[in-house]
Amino acid sequence: MGGEFDFLEWIRSRQKPDPLIVIGSGDDLAAYRWPAGELMLAGVDQVVDGVHFDSKIHPPRAIGRKAMNRNLSDCAAMACLPAAALATVALPAGCGLEYARELYLGMEEAANLFACPIVGGDTSSWPRKLVMTVTILGRDGGIPPITRGGARAGERIFVTGPLGGSLLGRHMEFEPRVRMGRELAEKYRPTAMIDLSDGLSRDLRHICRLSGVGAVIEAGSVPIHADAISLSARDARTPLEHALHDGEDYELLFTCAAEVPGAIRIGVTTTDREIVIRDGNQTRALEPMAWEHRL
Amino acid sequence: MGGEFDFLEWIRSRQKPDPLIVIGSGDDLAAYRWPAGELMLAGVDQVVDGVHFDSKIHPPRAIGRKAMNRNLSDCAAMACLPAAALATVALPAGCGLEYARELYLGMEEAANLFACPIVGGDTSSWPRKLVMTVTILGRDGGIPPITRGGARAGERIFVTGPLGGSLLGRHMEFEPRVRMGRELAEKYRPTAMIDLSDGLSRDLRHICRLSGVGAVIEAGSVPIHADAISLSARDARTPLEHALHDGEDYELLFTCAAEVPGAIRIGVTTTDREIVIRDGNQTRALEPMAWEHRL
Repeated sequence: MGGEFDFLEWIRSRQKPDPLIVIGSGDDLAAYRWPAGELMLAGVDQVVDGVHFDSKIHPPRAIGRKAMNRNLSDCAAMACLPAAALATVALPAGCGLEYARELYLGMEEAANLFACPIVGGDTSSWPRKLVMTVTILGRDGGIPPITRGGARAGERIFVTGPLGGSLLGRHMEFEPRVRMGRELAEKYRPTAMIDLSDGLSRDLRHICRLSGVGAVIEAGSVPIHADAISLSARDARTPLEHALHDGEDYELLFTCAAEVPGAIRIGVTTTDREIVIRDGNQTRALEPMAWEHRL
Repeated sequence: MGGEFDFLEWIRSRQKPDPLIVIGSGDDLAAYRWPAGELMLAGVDQVVDGVHFDSKIHPPRAIGRKAMNRNLSDCAAMACLPAAALATVALPAGCGLEYARELYLGMEEAANLFACPIVGGDTSSWPRKLVMTVTILGRDGGIPPITRGGARAGERIFVTGPLGGSLLGRHMEFEPRVRMGRELAEKYRPTAMIDLSDGLSRDLRHICRLSGVGAVIEAGSVPIHADAISLSARDARTPLEHALHDGEDYELLFTCAAEVPGAIRIGVTTTDREIVIRDGNQTRALEPMAWEHRL
């Protein structure tokens, strides 16, 4: 069983030359020749055992993929191009070098699909459970980033796919909508965009609050994933409730003045600050019920 | 007791306008107008409870400071300017909003000393112990970064301060050598540089391996911190052993062709790949004995 330095040596051996990377993994910091005139976008996201995955069920390769994909999904939400990633892992003591490698290979697998090199990181071990973080750096690639704060009243609200029940497995194996985000931004210029990680009811709230608008969601237009129906059969919640509140769908939620072919229109933005859902003649407040980490 | 979103709201309220920050905390990613022609340096470092700090002893403000300072110390080692930081925290469930705020204020306090804004992050809570990460972004600011790999045989080896025994408290409260790193790079152009986090014996090995040189360290020249002497009185190790192996000194270790006034010369680089320590007429291999995380 190897130590931290064997693992770091192995990581270094996997580095490929890249004209933009002046100093790669293995130094105090990596150095990157930032393309002139391009914005640098940056975010970080963590996954912790028992909250975002269950190490008793999920193989390390899948955990690594998820850690990376969550960050790539943030790139999708801003319509930017992934440029480079950094990762940390706090390993359960005694998990072994092979386990650590599998985590890394999962991250690498996900990042490679978007030509995003892993340029640095940090490894610790401790007598507790697995925690991983990925920092993602993105560049605008000629398309101005789309924030959460640009929606105006009277615009359409869209999602890019069916929602709910991701807990049945999709939350571990999703495809970040990086290309879709770029395409939407280029063709239709959404006014605000976010990836659905906290659940539609909560993520819509982020857009509305930052944009200073309200929203009316049409209950009958919310696309319901088959998983939401399966999960509904097991608990007291309806498929629609699952679609509205579950989270970890990793589809894009966006607002746009124009119609967007291929996207699913679920409502409109309004001048008042209320977020409501309309079901036939009934209109009620759409309160978030998604997961919130308690401090 | 507040939830994650109260905490995020509070963080957002602390953001100051910055001409380089196009999109600040609170969106999927932050966006930064990267100064044209400047390299972007990036690294990430984590601290975990029971390994890098002890939450039973160390107040959250000090833990936050350390998390940030370790990353600022990496900037020092590359002679770059801190530009922006991102942070994650996996909070012990029920620790409370005030504890989370103190962690953040500690990070902010340390970063403010170098005008380095915290532009993003991620918060989770879980029924385990505290894990924090900080991602640091730096820019070269007109001084090419100094790597670990540029030392040549026949150069002098220096450290910037006395070593050993940091466990007695200094490992929590140190001043990252950012300004010193810049000044050294500007005036003396070290050929290789690293910050002493793993311990002199191990960090010197990083420089030697990446530079393809060996080293002779003069035992009598290694500066010994008073803490190393105090610690020596408690255990079976000599003050010199503490100075050579303890780690977390966060002084700079560097090689330079020229003499460097103010820095402490501890040896020379050699053509063979051996790393040895000379004590009078005795010469022996200097093997790393510092902390290595076991996987």
